[in-house]
Amino acid sequence: MRRHELDTPALILDLDVVEANIAAMAAFFRDRPQKLRPHFKTPKTPEIARRQMEAGAIGITAAKLGEAEVLARAGIGPVLIANQLVGRQKIDRLLALPEHVEIIVAVESLLNVEELEAGAKRTGRRPHVVIEVDTGMHRCGTANPEDTAALAERIAAGPLVYRGIMGYEGHTVLLPDPTDRREKATAALERLSAHVRALRAAGFSPEIVSAGGTGTYDIAGSQPDVTEVQAGSYVFMDGRYRSVRPDLGQPALTLLTTVIARHGDYAVIDAGMKALSNDMGPSAGARLPFTVARLSEEHGTVQTGEADLQPGMKVEVLPSHNDTTINLHSEYYVVRGDEVVDVWPVEGARAYR
Amino acid sequence: MRRHELDTPALILDLDVVEANIAAMAAFFRDRPQKLRPHFKTPKTPEIARRQMEAGAIGITAAKLGEAEVLARAGIGPVLIANQLVGRQKIDRLLALPEHVEIIVAVESLLNVEELEAGAKRTGRRPHVVIEVDTGMHRCGTANPEDTAALAERIAAGPLVYRGIMGYEGHTVLLPDPTDRREKATAALERLSAHVRALRAAGFSPEIVSAGGTGTYDIAGSQPDVTEVQAGSYVFMDGRYRSVRPDLGQPALTLLTTVIARHGDYAVIDAGMKALSNDMGPSAGARLPFTVARLSEEHGTVQTGEADLQPGMKVEVLPSHNDTTINLHSEYYVVRGDEVVDVWPVEGARAYR
Repeated sequence: MRRHELDTPALILDLDVVEANIAAMAAFFRDRPQKLRPHFKTPKTPEIARRQMEAGAIGITAAKLGEAEVLARAGIGPVLIANQLVGRQKIDRLLALPEHVEIIVAVESLLNVEELEAGAKRTGRRPHVVIEVDTGMHRCGTANPEDTAALAERIAAGPLVYRGIMGYEGHTVLLPDPTDRREKATAALERLSAHVRALRAAGFSPEIVSAGGTGTYDIAGSQPDVTEVQAGSYVFMDGRYRSVRPDLGQPALTLLTTVIARHGDYAVIDAGMKALSNDMGPSAGARLPFTVARLSEEHGTVQTGEADLQPGMKVEVLPSHNDTTINLHSEYYVVRGDEVVDVWPVEGARAYR
Repeated sequence: MRRHELDTPALILDLDVVEANIAAMAAFFRDRPQKLRPHFKTPKTPEIARRQMEAGAIGITAAKLGEAEVLARAGIGPVLIANQLVGRQKIDRLLALPEHVEIIVAVESLLNVEELEAGAKRTGRRPHVVIEVDTGMHRCGTANPEDTAALAERIAAGPLVYRGIMGYEGHTVLLPDPTDRREKATAALERLSAHVRALRAAGFSPEIVSAGGTGTYDIAGSQPDVTEVQAGSYVFMDGRYRSVRPDLGQPALTLLTTVIARHGDYAVIDAGMKALSNDMGPSAGARLPFTVARLSEEHGTVQTGEADLQPGMKVEVLPSHNDTTINLHSEYYVVRGDEVVDVWPVEGARAYR
């Protein structure tokens, strides 16, 4: 089957571009001390994670337990869960994962440590942890280096295995101006280094120092204290990262849609908010010049611009934000050129907790 | 199991409130010529549609073919697909549905009619159609009453079964001021009536005239030309409709979340854009006074306000927009009071085309 014969809306993944993007990012990390642990929250399919591991990644980063479960069951790891797991049910699920895949989980409070310790006591297993540090995004994480060192000391005194720290400078990865982005990311990474120094001074030198995203992979990937980078979006790219990092890879993912109506200067496609996200602004035509100006639940209203869209045409959209768009779908239609060669499940979207 | 023992994030559906909301809306339509054909795009589960039918609904409205497939396979109908189906694959799927459930589909262009006629020719089945009219939302639909009459004439000359028209005044349903909403909705319904008059004059008096949403159910439901109303959100209500229609039902749906961190005046819950939508603005606490000020993909940053949220607490959020939030989930946890009594699948989200 050819890509334009697919029923719509359908996620189309260009495997040639995916492979080129994986190879290019792997090449950047090949000869440096910093390594790549790509984020699973974008692709949500073991097919991608496996290819990233084969290209030299040291493991995979996950955003939540459900993603780590998918990876562990596929035998892919080590996995860093870059988030806190709170509550007995999640701790029990974590400790029920296959033991042959190493899982490291982020903690940021005494509660996290105590819950994991209680789980260790129940099961005899010793969860590996990194401490999450707030480097300026103001979401989760310890802000004070002394608090980080005190938490490390607390961890090391118990059954948990202390591995290091992580700090994601998410407030800088999408800054459009390269100089501004570099300055603010560097400032965030300097905050991370302050925690590293406090830990070293307290005798808890971190083996893992994880940071960085697709917008800052080269900044974090050149910082001496950083040991690994958790970029994820690079594998497919999307509209927002294309505008922020035009030097990076080509877009590998598009949404195939059908034009269902045309009235004057606008057309309507069969993809609304339930198939295409707009949290990063409007998406655009992937091959034809148009903008998806408005989304209702099942309709996208397209300013046709230079493109003469007519009902019945199938047109591809480059999502402005892949992560939240992929999360709306159940499968990828994988193509080489125009030929559909495979169908891959979007697995993490179902295991959403 | 009790509702607060569920792993998070989890959709919690209060069945007592659902039943009260279904009964209240059914009561409004009981003694009037206009009838209720509730929209499936909100609940996406046959469990709700079946209860609505038992309460007197004349059928169900669907937003896309995948939803109609779920309903038809559950034996629930007649179903009005309030949208165009474009492309051979969708026409073939439509014509492969079980024949004992009546399906009516909206058309708005000659292409729609020709594609359905070709399907009728291939299969010997005669699809039922209504003509979609643009009453001011400027999405799909015929704008000119003469065009509507001409399309009806074209339909009646072929194998399709002409049933009437629909026109959803979606641009008015969420207007906050009741007087403004009534005036603009009435103007839209008057446009719909102009199409009805043109059809009658041409000898194609519509059996079905479908309009209305939860914000305008009583306006559309009192308009003499309207025969049925396609309100959907009323069944659960949500933050936006609570503010627009405080006179309507109570909220039946909440999202149970866990507080995973607390820093100063903000806390973080384990529900971000992949579990909670924000296309209708920020969501709020369902029982405690807080606002979910910012969503990242897997985190919600909560302005704690008067609520002293601490890590480990489970708190319920009233989504600002249920339709797009439900679309992110796989199941409802159904409760009576605090007790979880059932788990219902969100079915339409998988059959998303």
